[in-house]
Amino acid sequence: MKHSAKGMKTTGGRSLSRRRFLTAAVSVTGLAAAQALFRPLRAQARAVPEDPTRVPGAPPSPYGQRSEFEQATRLAGTSHSLTPLQDLHGIVTPSALHFERHHNGVPVIDPARHRLLIHGLVERPMIFTMDDLKRFPSVSRLAFIECSGNSAREWRAPGGQTVQETHGLMSTSEWTGVALAMVLREVGVKPDAAWMLAEGSDAAAMTRSIPLGPAMEDALLCYAQNGEPLRPEQGYPLRLLLPGWEGNTCIKWLRRLKLGTAPFMTREETSHYTDLMPDGTARQFTMVMEAKSVITHPSGGQQLRPGFVEVRGLAWSGNGRVTVVEVSTDGGRTWQPARLHDLVLPECPTRFTFPWRWEGQEAVLQSRCTDETGYVQPTRQALITVRGLNSVYHYNAIQSWKVARDGRVSNVHA
Amino acid sequence: MKHSAKGMKTTGGRSLSRRRFLTAAVSVTGLAAAQALFRPLRAQARAVPEDPTRVPGAPPSPYGQRSEFEQATRLAGTSHSLTPLQDLHGIVTPSALHFERHHNGVPVIDPARHRLLIHGLVERPMIFTMDDLKRFPSVSRLAFIECSGNSAREWRAPGGQTVQETHGLMSTSEWTGVALAMVLREVGVKPDAAWMLAEGSDAAAMTRSIPLGPAMEDALLCYAQNGEPLRPEQGYPLRLLLPGWEGNTCIKWLRRLKLGTAPFMTREETSHYTDLMPDGTARQFTMVMEAKSVITHPSGGQQLRPGFVEVRGLAWSGNGRVTVVEVSTDGGRTWQPARLHDLVLPECPTRFTFPWRWEGQEAVLQSRCTDETGYVQPTRQALITVRGLNSVYHYNAIQSWKVARDGRVSNVHA
Repeated sequence: MKHSAKGMKTTGGRSLSRRRFLTAAVSVTGLAAAQALFRPLRAQARAVPEDPTRVPGAPPSPYGQRSEFEQATRLAGTSHSLTPLQDLHGIVTPSALHFERHHNGVPVIDPARHRLLIHGLVERPMIFTMDDLKRFPSVSRLAFIECSGNSAREWRAPGGQTVQETHGLMSTSEWTGVALAMVLREVGVKPDAAWMLAEGSDAAAMTRSIPLGPAMEDALLCYAQNGEPLRPEQGYPLRLLLPGWEGNTCIKWLRRLKLGTAPFMTREETSHYTDLMPDGTARQFTMVMEAKSVITHPSGGQQLRPGFVEVRGLAWSGNGRVTVVEVSTDGGRTWQPARLHDLVLPECPTRFTFPWRWEGQEAVLQSRCTDETGYVQPTRQALITVRGLNSVYHYNAIQSWKVARDGRVSNVHA
Repeated sequence: MKHSAKGMKTTGGRSLSRRRFLTAAVSVTGLAAAQALFRPLRAQARAVPEDPTRVPGAPPSPYGQRSEFEQATRLAGTSHSLTPLQDLHGIVTPSALHFERHHNGVPVIDPARHRLLIHGLVERPMIFTMDDLKRFPSVSRLAFIECSGNSAREWRAPGGQTVQETHGLMSTSEWTGVALAMVLREVGVKPDAAWMLAEGSDAAAMTRSIPLGPAMEDALLCYAQNGEPLRPEQGYPLRLLLPGWEGNTCIKWLRRLKLGTAPFMTREETSHYTDLMPDGTARQFTMVMEAKSVITHPSGGQQLRPGFVEVRGLAWSGNGRVTVVEVSTDGGRTWQPARLHDLVLPECPTRFTFPWRWEGQEAVLQSRCTDETGYVQPTRQALITVRGLNSVYHYNAIQSWKVARDGRVSNVHA
């Protein structure tokens, strides 16, 4: 649903009351107006009853679908797709719209044949079936996954037209699985084990090295997402979840964990997923996704109409809870606190809102978040001062949306 | 996914270690075993690669689907369908599996043509478009909706074979909308208004009377569910949400709110949705769904194998938060505390678990919850003592699952 864009279209240029949130709604005085509710407002290409109370509806169904009137989709590239954040509400991402990133496609895996091998520096190398893993004590939690390449096009110039294009490689689910620590206790971790190789069974055989200490704290071997089994593009039937860490480490289609003393130096942590610094060195194993926020409404590609506008956005941190979100309507000169909506959870986006009136003036909207470690989301200039312009990953600067006098919203680097 | 049932099938009758959660997983000693992972374990009717790492996978897609290997469905009657609680994880119900209950089918409604009329005892009768409603400040929250007819077949004799059949008219979503109180401030509530008629635009033109006081506290006019627009069978494009109240009051396809001084005495609160008591009187306007819990694993129709069993279930209350869940494995003679998992939220199910070992003995599993008001979920006998056996709605007694010596689980009235 393009609710945000639709919600801002003018309904005929009536000036909106300052006292109320809207007066575009039509005042009525009696039943005649109520009857008028059900006249067709526009020609329909499909059979939509003029009065749905006169036509028996559809029977129950085994597995529901969204309305045919709803067309929000992931924007798909060759090896990724982007979540339409401008169309979403609350904090949960519908599984069908969770962003994708894969390095050689989404494999077809029969869960009855899938196995997880755990070997290397362990007392008892073991192979687990999916049924074995589901038999363990289970844990569920809400958490975001963000590709470290999210917002990568913003390093040099405004790259994305919409928030889907600038920030759509971040999605949120309720994940269920078994604590990695519990499964590793079953195989027995040898004292000198310090790193773990995680390998996917996709055609890229994706591998990453994970430091064992932090992974033992809160990593999950996940088999479910938003109540259901994982979606195929999210690693069905098994993925690693490292809450708050770059998405690439949350290995999908997980088939193997090998424990060792040192990182395994796979391709994805040498030629990729490193951050080239101004002095020519590269940051490596930059696992944590630092605090970030973005306004999803109004955002690029939308058009405002004058009157009350609820500024809406998401803020998240890989280092715990978001504690403060501030909004600026003047390109960062002044800031005011946004309201944080429940739920405020660690490694999970928080929905924020900020009441605003737009009366035709030019404006630059920004949001800035602080997390529980005291870390403040940097300006673009502050980020570049430290990191330079050679990086691809871990761009978490403040995003600016410019509102023009005609109400059009666009991506700018303020 | 029938994970619960699958998870309990024997893998060959090996006795399981008492020390560990499982030993059904296969111990391996080298790479030869790892290679064996990818041999086909059974013939496949469809093209599933023997080694998914050798076959490029599918490209990204605009709107994802679940794996073809997953077949959990709602059990559909003529005017309702039941959520497969035995197949679900965490607390969020996938929208595609949210239970249905409609009185004349699911209507097709064009959101651009849909209107909400608010009239009666208001200062300014108004008609709202969907865009109008989305322009208001927004609120999101997790909440269950339970049909007051949930578990109705259990009044007289064990009626459902599975937890889907006994408790499947309860589902949970993250709902987003605008506070009813805020919209009513816009129209101006007259001082003598005390009740509100809510009317749907389905072919039943469902109507219920809602007391205005409690509705002003936390009722929402919802347009989204789990991030997306409402699903058609959940009232697309607009439904009323009264957190913790019987599902029937959460009018779907909402088109009209009329304020008045007294209940409107619609068919659904006279001939239906009342509770006939032993003395011949009927309870009316029994809106709140009182505290209830059920074990979803193990549950009816599943079969245990010996060893560690994580007892899993859900507990909820229309009167706020669940504070305690206890589990009995001996039909209610003794009780032990279950673990409540985060999140513990008002009017939202809490996932509970209880570690158990089953070694072939007969057992009767029960769960009993207490909510923040101090209300304790009643035994079946206690409920019947007060309510008699003439009721259809509001059955919230403790559920018993009998485990036979062969591991089969069935619904009993213990």
